[in-house]
Amino acid sequence: MDLFGKDLITTQEWTKEELDAVLDLAAKMKRDRFNPRFTSLLQNKTFFMFFYNPSVRTRQSFECAATELGGHAQFLEPKAMRLKTATSAGETVEDAAKVMDRYAAGLGIRILEDKIGAYGEGDDLIREYAYWARMPVFSMAHDKYHPFQGLADIMGWAEWYGKGPGQTLDMSVLKGKKLLVTWGHGALARSWCSVQEALLIGSRYGMHVTLAHPEGYPLDPQVIEWTRANCQANGTTFEETTDVREGYVGAHVVYSRHWMSPDAYKDGEFLKQQEIERALKLTEWICDAEKMRLTDNAIFTHPMPIDRGHEVTDEVASGPRSCIYDVAENRLHVQKAVMALTMSGLL
Amino acid sequence: MDLFGKDLITTQEWTKEELDAVLDLAAKMKRDRFNPRFTSLLQNKTFFMFFYNPSVRTRQSFECAATELGGHAQFLEPKAMRLKTATSAGETVEDAAKVMDRYAAGLGIRILEDKIGAYGEGDDLIREYAYWARMPVFSMAHDKYHPFQGLADIMGWAEWYGKGPGQTLDMSVLKGKKLLVTWGHGALARSWCSVQEALLIGSRYGMHVTLAHPEGYPLDPQVIEWTRANCQANGTTFEETTDVREGYVGAHVVYSRHWMSPDAYKDGEFLKQQEIERALKLTEWICDAEKMRLTDNAIFTHPMPIDRGHEVTDEVASGPRSCIYDVAENRLHVQKAVMALTMSGLL
Amino acid sequence: MDLFGKDLITTQEWTKEELDAVLDLAAKMKRDRFNPRFTSLLQNKTFFMFFYNPSVRTRQSFECAATELGGHAQFLEPKAMRLKTATSAGETVEDAAKVMDRYAAGLGIRILEDKIGAYGEGDDLIREYAYWARMPVFSMAHDKYHPFQGLADIMGWAEWYGKGPGQTLDMSVLKGKKLLVTWGHGALARSWCSVQEALLIGSRYGMHVTLAHPEGYPLDPQVIEWTRANCQANGTTFEETTDVREGYVGAHVVYSRHWMSPDAYKDGEFLKQQEIERALKLTEWICDAEKMRLTDNAIFTHPMPIDRGHEVTDEVASGPRSCIYDVAENRLHVQKAVMALTMSGLL
Repeated sequence: MDLFGKDLITTQEWTKEELDAVLDLAAKMKRDRFNPRFTSLLQNKTFFMFFYNPSVRTRQSFECAATELGGHAQFLEPKAMRLKTATSAGETVEDAAKVMDRYAAGLGIRILEDKIGAYGEGDDLIREYAYWARMPVFSMAHDKYHPFQGLADIMGWAEWYGKGPGQTLDMSVLKGKKLLVTWGHGALARSWCSVQEALLIGSRYGMHVTLAHPEGYPLDPQVIEWTRANCQANGTTFEETTDVREGYVGAHVVYSRHWMSPDAYKDGEFLKQQEIERALKLTEWICDAEKMRLTDNAIFTHPMPIDRGHEVTDEVASGPRSCIYDVAENRLHVQKAVMALTMSGLL
Repeated sequence: MDLFGKDLITTQEWTKEELDAVLDLAAKMKRDRFNPRFTSLLQNKTFFMFFYNPSVRTRQSFECAATELGGHAQFLEPKAMRLKTATSAGETVEDAAKVMDRYAAGLGIRILEDKIGAYGEGDDLIREYAYWARMPVFSMAHDKYHPFQGLADIMGWAEWYGKGPGQTLDMSVLKGKKLLVTWGHGALARSWCSVQEALLIGSRYGMHVTLAHPEGYPLDPQVIEWTRANCQANGTTFEETTDVREGYVGAHVVYSRHWMSPDAYKDGEFLKQQEIERALKLTEWICDAEKMRLTDNAIFTHPMPIDRGHEVTDEVASGPRSCIYDVAENRLHVQKAVMALTMSGLL
Repeated sequence: MDLFGKDLITTQEWTKEELDAVLDLAAKMKRDRFNPRFTSLLQNKTFFMFFYNPSVRTRQSFECAATELGGHAQFLEPKAMRLKTATSAGETVEDAAKVMDRYAAGLGIRILEDKIGAYGEGDDLIREYAYWARMPVFSMAHDKYHPFQGLADIMGWAEWYGKGPGQTLDMSVLKGKKLLVTWGHGALARSWCSVQEALLIGSRYGMHVTLAHPEGYPLDPQVIEWTRANCQANGTTFEETTDVREGYVGAHVVYSRHWMSPDAYKDGEFLKQQEIERALKLTEWICDAEKMRLTDNAIFTHPMPIDRGHEVTDEVASGPRSCIYDVAENRLHVQKAVMALTMSGLL
């Protein structure tokens, strides 16, 4: 296995062995965070971060990751540059990427719903950079996928069902566990990337998967097809439901988050306000203690920031079975692991 | 004494011994700036800087401080993130702080007059972060206090009345010296934080203190009470006057700076233009050579940037008794010292 | 020769020996980029970057340069600070520069056409910083000059006419070669800095120079005079033409780029739209394969970003004789070399 220079756009495009290598290294880095084996891997090297969209955790955790590996993450905002975006002209991606290759060891791109004119345009832009650049290109969340969130999720769930955060990681504890990914109402018109990545990686690691949402909130058919295939390969079940409670029954991991409808884009416009008004009417779609009682003592997971009071109640989000802070911490460790493996040639 | 993890929101909340430890280390760091004892204290560590308000010196000096200690300061602007501010909704401070604790070794926050709806809201926000975060939380200037400016001020004054900048520091030279903090007219509607911190730390270090301002420009009663108590404990005098000249008589340190009136906020609005128009009428409130002749050969001090021609004349600000550049330099050294003591466990 | 603390505002103000020292070191740094001799030269040191104007390559390459030398480049945007600009009030440059000197080892400034009210104001501002600051002050592109682009250009051309990129550099291969700097039509109303620097440094290194542009697009008379003097000193020719083809004949290096007319400023306003409309009419001013056939198998050079389809055709820009990516890479190496020589006292 040689991961040097490998792009990461969705975990679905990496083999199970490659993902295992990332999670194994991430767990070691978490246990012994400033071990000298790790702290100079990116010495004098630069990681470019393109934030078409702002962010708290992604910015913080990627910049910390580079620092902890001895390197430097450059925070770049394409809107203040003269680069092509998904919806405006500028320097060609070919020209930009070929020059950046001369300067940096890796490139991360974040581009979400309101910076594009139709679902898939962010994915196209990232793949165009990945095509032209020799260095690894990562999605730091885009319209379709959020691979580092998926890795952090699965690592956190395995920690909670295994020996606990920071201990030896055994991914097999998730086999046969039931993951519920459920829509929540909310005031943010959120992207599909996090929940889609969760479906993909949960099913890769042998979980039964249930996807629950109201009528009119389907996800990407390609993601559904892949999730179904992953489950089939692992001998697990994949179910979809529009019932707000059914999916909770027997679940071990509950992932409640809002996402936009496919009607969010019209003629290249992102109809944020319309989406929010529509979503806020579906008030029963909230993860609360009553629904959690239907589960098999499930843990609650969320990629944060949480829209508390809409996606989930405070009681559940801040309760004893909430793994949100551990999952958020894991963003740092999985990002360090992927950067080490793809940018430093450690493996 | 163990300062690891200790917040710094105002110097008034630290003991004299703790402040002495900071100033002693700052003086050593100034004398031998790149000594290897200091240059790796924050290796691979991250300091988060939240700039709700922009800044020149604070940004430059904190980011330099982290670099000189071998670490990295992340420049974060909450307006471009999805964080709660003093006046708008967003992710809860609890959620944000608990995650940031997993990533970083310290957090600095700057929030000034125009980003809040009433005096004290910035202080509340910083204290909320300090409550939830385990890592040290610092004020990088807020509506109430500016602790690093106060430390830089007192260090600079002691250097000028002692052996000079960069030499052995003896804080006792300030005992019995007279500090004048005087209002100046100006076009900026400035916050109370710097002058309030100067009153507090000047009185802590045994100076006689006079506060001079026109009618209608009082400062925070809590700060006045603390300053009076500090003076009482040191057997020094504290005086307030509305006479523009009286305070200069016999002064050793003159601090002339504009500040807003308590009428600056109305119904959550910051009435900047009204404040500026009102202040600009009081043209005699300027520190000039004529008034400086009333002093005991006082030094002129200011936290910069200076509103020249309003707060002070060029003749005084650029004169031979101006310590402004030395004080500005000390920002770097006191910040390095506090970061080393609270973030690296040096002491 | 001692370059420590030396400003770089245009290459014309450095001696040939000093420029040779830069290019020699840049070539060594390119050959052995992460050699430990180089990677700690700026350890714990800060380089301030003032971007009055945004940028892709300049930002990326300077920040990478600092990182590769072991230091840190602070990305500062004066518009978000309280600093004087060329067209607005704020803290005096004297105050700002004298304090920055206490914090940092070097200062780079970028200020272009639309941030000033008349040609030359950006140059004035940089020279004011250079006057007050002891540390070296660099132009990272301003209205008049772009010294690092000039150094990267000449290094790239010498590589292409010598042993190739990354090999031993012999600057004498450019002696007697013909440089064509030609205007191109375009939609960007571009500054004069890059082309002016190319004229200056090309003529310094013994090239014959031809400047071609339509009527109404002259450059700075001072630059023309210096270029003519450089050519005279080297026994080469300097020609100006308003013919779109003539200059191509026998050329070895073709530099096609748009620039604004002297009418771009009126009463302190930058008339961007008017400039663009006027320029777009001159459609025959494009570098294409037909014109390139008139040359002596010339290489095509451009400082990027390229306005493809206006300044040059894709066929030429992406053709086998295009040196654009090598020149862009050289930005990194020449910047590292100048920073090492002026900020670390290496030489």
